[in-house]
Amino acid sequence: MTIDPKKVLRLNLPQWQGGDHPDYRIGARVLAAIAPEPLGPEETVAVPEAHDDVRPADQGIVSRQPLLDLAAAAMSAIRRHSPDAVVTLGGDCLVNLAPVAYLNERYGDDLAVLWVDAHPDVMGAGQFRNAHAHVLAMLMGIGDPDFVAAVPKPVQARQILYVGLTETTPFETDFIAKHGLARLSPEDLAGSAEPVLDWLRAAGAKKVAVHFDLDVLDPTLYDFLLLQDPAAKPNTYEGVAKGRMRFEEVARILTAVDAEADVVGLAIAEYMPWSAIQLSKSLQTLPLLGKR
Amino acid sequence: MTIDPKKVLRLNLPQWQGGDHPDYRIGARVLAAIAPEPLGPEETVAVPEAHDDVRPADQGIVSRQPLLDLAAAAMSAIRRHSPDAVVTLGGDCLVNLAPVAYLNERYGDDLAVLWVDAHPDVMGAGQFRNAHAHVLAMLMGIGDPDFVAAVPKPVQARQILYVGLTETTPFETDFIAKHGLARLSPEDLAGSAEPVLDWLRAAGAKKVAVHFDLDVLDPTLYDFLLLQDPAAKPNTYEGVAKGRMRFEEVARILTAVDAEADVVGLAIAEYMPWSAIQLSKSLQTLPLLGKR
Repeated sequence: MTIDPKKVLRLNLPQWQGGDHPDYRIGARVLAAIAPEPLGPEETVAVPEAHDDVRPADQGIVSRQPLLDLAAAAMSAIRRHSPDAVVTLGGDCLVNLAPVAYLNERYGDDLAVLWVDAHPDVMGAGQFRNAHAHVLAMLMGIGDPDFVAAVPKPVQARQILYVGLTETTPFETDFIAKHGLARLSPEDLAGSAEPVLDWLRAAGAKKVAVHFDLDVLDPTLYDFLLLQDPAAKPNTYEGVAKGRMRFEEVARILTAVDAEADVVGLAIAEYMPWSAIQLSKSLQTLPLLGKR
Repeated sequence: MTIDPKKVLRLNLPQWQGGDHPDYRIGARVLAAIAPEPLGPEETVAVPEAHDDVRPADQGIVSRQPLLDLAAAAMSAIRRHSPDAVVTLGGDCLVNLAPVAYLNERYGDDLAVLWVDAHPDVMGAGQFRNAHAHVLAMLMGIGDPDFVAAVPKPVQARQILYVGLTETTPFETDFIAKHGLARLSPEDLAGSAEPVLDWLRAAGAKKVAVHFDLDVLDPTLYDFLLLQDPAAKPNTYEGVAKGRMRFEEVARILTAVDAEADVVGLAIAEYMPWSAIQLSKSLQTLPLLGKR
């Protein structure tokens, strides 16, 4: 990589509304605390805590207006620095809307987008009310018009590669086929970076934005995934595709990519450190720390 | 409680040297991230990462001079605000040296100290090289003279009550008996606050400083305790007394204490969120986040 660390913006975005789960906010704060300290500028977008237990959908999307506001705030924070690269610490998957939109505007056809995720994130309001599952479609210019308007230059299908994608629903499978999105399952990769490098060479892109949804990881090996929510009702995540990768495999692929091109975007999303989330709530029951 | 939240200092002290385990620093950063946001002033004492793998003892104490420097920095940070109360987020147990020293100077005989801990923290350099196990003795004016000098007014034995203390070593048992320190085991408490309130009424103190070492908790119920270190050599913690309390029991006792008196100090120490600590190290292997 040839990116100057001082030109990398660290963007902390503890957004929970896109997954409609207030605990994403705690997870994002923990992620910002455990990440290596930034060498360049840092911006933290203020995200309010949840105040209501019932959050209705507007035009099919829960917390639609707050999410539009947060996307605008994130884009403003990025533009203040005109960074060469952005590290985004979420929060739900929708945190990567403004960063990839910015990077695609900046690097255009020279940019590839690696979507490292068990899920394709191409649903719309007709399929799912939580917009964290819409983000890649929005980046392609498809979906809710106000979110799409937040992406000045849509990402083209040929710029996108799924890494670690698992089983898709019929809607998702059709979307992927219709747009010709390239996909590599964990088994296609088989622990190797070569299939990704082959795609990257064919695409000819020299800059790479990485979306790393932690749910691409195998839940039998990691304890910080959404579907392990101890408060979820039984069967909440039944039928939802589960990741099958190890962190080390993802890191090896991304390191190989960074040797071949410049990684200019890295978003880490969907971190749910349940033990810390539980302790966070317990701390509120202590004198001097409790809600007053 | 009658403490004005705006007069409560939040003191973040990611000190790892007292336990000679660099991961305390990560734990302290996570604890600061998950704690309810402070309504009063906040100070974060800068603590460098570990640079050497071998850290020899000086006068029987590992990292002796850095720990003296951190205690002085913590005391300066506290005095800048003259707070009515201090919430200290560690780090190892020695983080509570300056806060209790300050509170005892401020409140004197009106202060009681509840030491909520599986261990008594009264060893000296002759018994153990890690000073986190010395902190209560130092607060009493016993131990390394330079640390003792950092405590302007020593805490008297009659001001101290152990809460949740388990099996003690012969040295510790003798120390406790010699000084007449009061102790309540988890079984003495049996989930009730009454034995603590009885002691508090007899002591007559109206202000209370709480030391909450998380190792007072039952390791079969919580996954963030030192002795669960996945990198520890086998049998490292064999023979070390283990906590037997639940968080809810501790919270219930402290809430009852706060109804009877003013809790003016709360230190939380020895938090080791192993899953987050592991991820913290994994993040360093990613492009844009790795060490450069």
